[in-house]
Amino acid sequence: MKIRVAIYGYGNLGRGVEAALATAEDMEAVGVFTRRDPATVKTVTGLPVFSADTLLSMKDKVDVVILCGGSRTDLPVQTPALAAHFNVVDSFDTHARIPEHLAAVNAAALAAGTCAVVSVGWDPGMFSLARLYGGAILPNGKDYTFWGRGVSQGHSDAIRRVTGVVDARQYTVPVEEALAAVRRGEEPELTARQKHTRECYVVAEAGADLARIEAEIKAMPDYFADYDTTVTFVSAEELRRDHAGIPHGGRVIRTGKTGIASDHSHVIEYSLKLDSNPEFTSSVLVAYARAAYRMSAEGVVGAKTVLDVPPVLLSPKGREELIASLV
Amino acid sequence: MKIRVAIYGYGNLGRGVEAALATAEDMEAVGVFTRRDPATVKTVTGLPVFSADTLLSMKDKVDVVILCGGSRTDLPVQTPALAAHFNVVDSFDTHARIPEHLAAVNAAALAAGTCAVVSVGWDPGMFSLARLYGGAILPNGKDYTFWGRGVSQGHSDAIRRVTGVVDARQYTVPVEEALAAVRRGEEPELTARQKHTRECYVVAEAGADLARIEAEIKAMPDYFADYDTTVTFVSAEELRRDHAGIPHGGRVIRTGKTGIASDHSHVIEYSLKLDSNPEFTSSVLVAYARAAYRMSAEGVVGAKTVLDVPPVLLSPKGREELIASLV
Repeated sequence: MKIRVAIYGYGNLGRGVEAALATAEDMEAVGVFTRRDPATVKTVTGLPVFSADTLLSMKDKVDVVILCGGSRTDLPVQTPALAAHFNVVDSFDTHARIPEHLAAVNAAALAAGTCAVVSVGWDPGMFSLARLYGGAILPNGKDYTFWGRGVSQGHSDAIRRVTGVVDARQYTVPVEEALAAVRRGEEPELTARQKHTRECYVVAEAGADLARIEAEIKAMPDYFADYDTTVTFVSAEELRRDHAGIPHGGRVIRTGKTGIASDHSHVIEYSLKLDSNPEFTSSVLVAYARAAYRMSAEGVVGAKTVLDVPPVLLSPKGREELIASLV
Repeated sequence: MKIRVAIYGYGNLGRGVEAALATAEDMEAVGVFTRRDPATVKTVTGLPVFSADTLLSMKDKVDVVILCGGSRTDLPVQTPALAAHFNVVDSFDTHARIPEHLAAVNAAALAAGTCAVVSVGWDPGMFSLARLYGGAILPNGKDYTFWGRGVSQGHSDAIRRVTGVVDARQYTVPVEEALAAVRRGEEPELTARQKHTRECYVVAEAGADLARIEAEIKAMPDYFADYDTTVTFVSAEELRRDHAGIPHGGRVIRTGKTGIASDHSHVIEYSLKLDSNPEFTSSVLVAYARAAYRMSAEGVVGAKTVLDVPPVLLSPKGREELIASLV
């Protein structure tokens, strides 16, 4: 019997999950659950669309729910609420609030006897794993995370909130010289500015004060003030033509020394180059939804992170086949 | 209380484990156990040396045994034998025989109620994990493992068995053009020859027939016949001076597509650059020895692989600290 999955929310992530499930032989999508009017939502593969309110009534038809909402307001409420009834997986990615989110989901899951995996994706997610494995193997060392070259949705949104801006795309770009120093094992101390630059492509309203917009963007605390930021004004058509994709990626590098005299250096590098940030995140979500269902079937309850999940549970293939073919 | 570790065997791996344990705050080495006369073995950090026969009598002083012998004749016998009494970790690396080895160790561990983790290191080991994670996330894709540039001990040994050869060092070198094609997501079919070249540095006996030695090396089935192989004759002093280290490394690359139209490509790359192959393997062994002990304390019995071990068990740090700092 296939693992029956509900897709909760239908933006970029939800569509990515729909596509990933379409090729997973051991899983099937029950449908999309939305807070919008279901009649207004058309799915790519023709999956049925239900009102989010009806999910509870389909409890016996769903093995695991993949939450596809945002981390700011959706997931902090939705994941604990749904974990009270279902096995769930989400991609909550506000790093500083992950322990708090995990605790809230854990309380709901423990009370309900369900299994949850939170903060799944690539960062948090696969990059968290790279940091853990790297640090456990090379304790006498240091790790670095570089993002990009890729589109940061959060930074693009921040630019759009500037008066006079119609649309914008922000690329996070790693500084090559910093990357090279890290790979040489120098374990440099790097400021935010030394690690990444920020490239902004901005469509302004006709007649807007471009110098003022550029200055406002560059001065924005947290987002841009601590970085070397470039602002390039483009037309709406240029933005559509040249910056339509949502590529991203990055790398986690761990360097460290071994030996009694610490005289041998090692470099572990885990890198991602992604054409579509949301589709890759969706693919990770689907693999961990499989694991959540399997853990639940084994009697595991509570909220977990990628650090807790035995890797073997992620693959549709059986353990013996995996060991014979991959180990 | 610290995790008490016995080091079984004292070659390059055993010395690497000794060094790694010296910096692990939560673990301590009980001693080195050797089949040689203990009086003839001197440890780098002054660890006591015992006869291998005495290990059983120290059962209440040892939490986990790290086996540091070879895969050809040592581990197939030693790991099951010791798993009948201790939690154990080994680096058995004959890929084709891993299922058989795992089964033998599993039978012994199940009967004894111990926990074993076998085939730990970087390949098998961290590369096995990279292949598993990559395939689970991007099922619609293909993975490639490239080794090097680095010293292959097995190939160096094979050259030394040729008549007239005094000493040798063999480097496995990935073919850059193949790497580039893989990274472009072309999913090429690659022969052994297209993936790696083999560089041999050979010290010959005085007066030996160099042309015959070179021809014999290049014709050696399995080891060299299927590769573009270069043979360079050097003096014993040049070999010592220029080829003393045991560097290695490599990379696992998974490429795959997502989206309903399979129109987005992704590249996951996990790479290692190691100054000392055995010391890195030892560092992985120590992290999995920690996990084996913890799993045993949780009641897990039987033989496991890296695919089975929850990542969180590898780090000396606590789960909450890891989640707050790494996820």
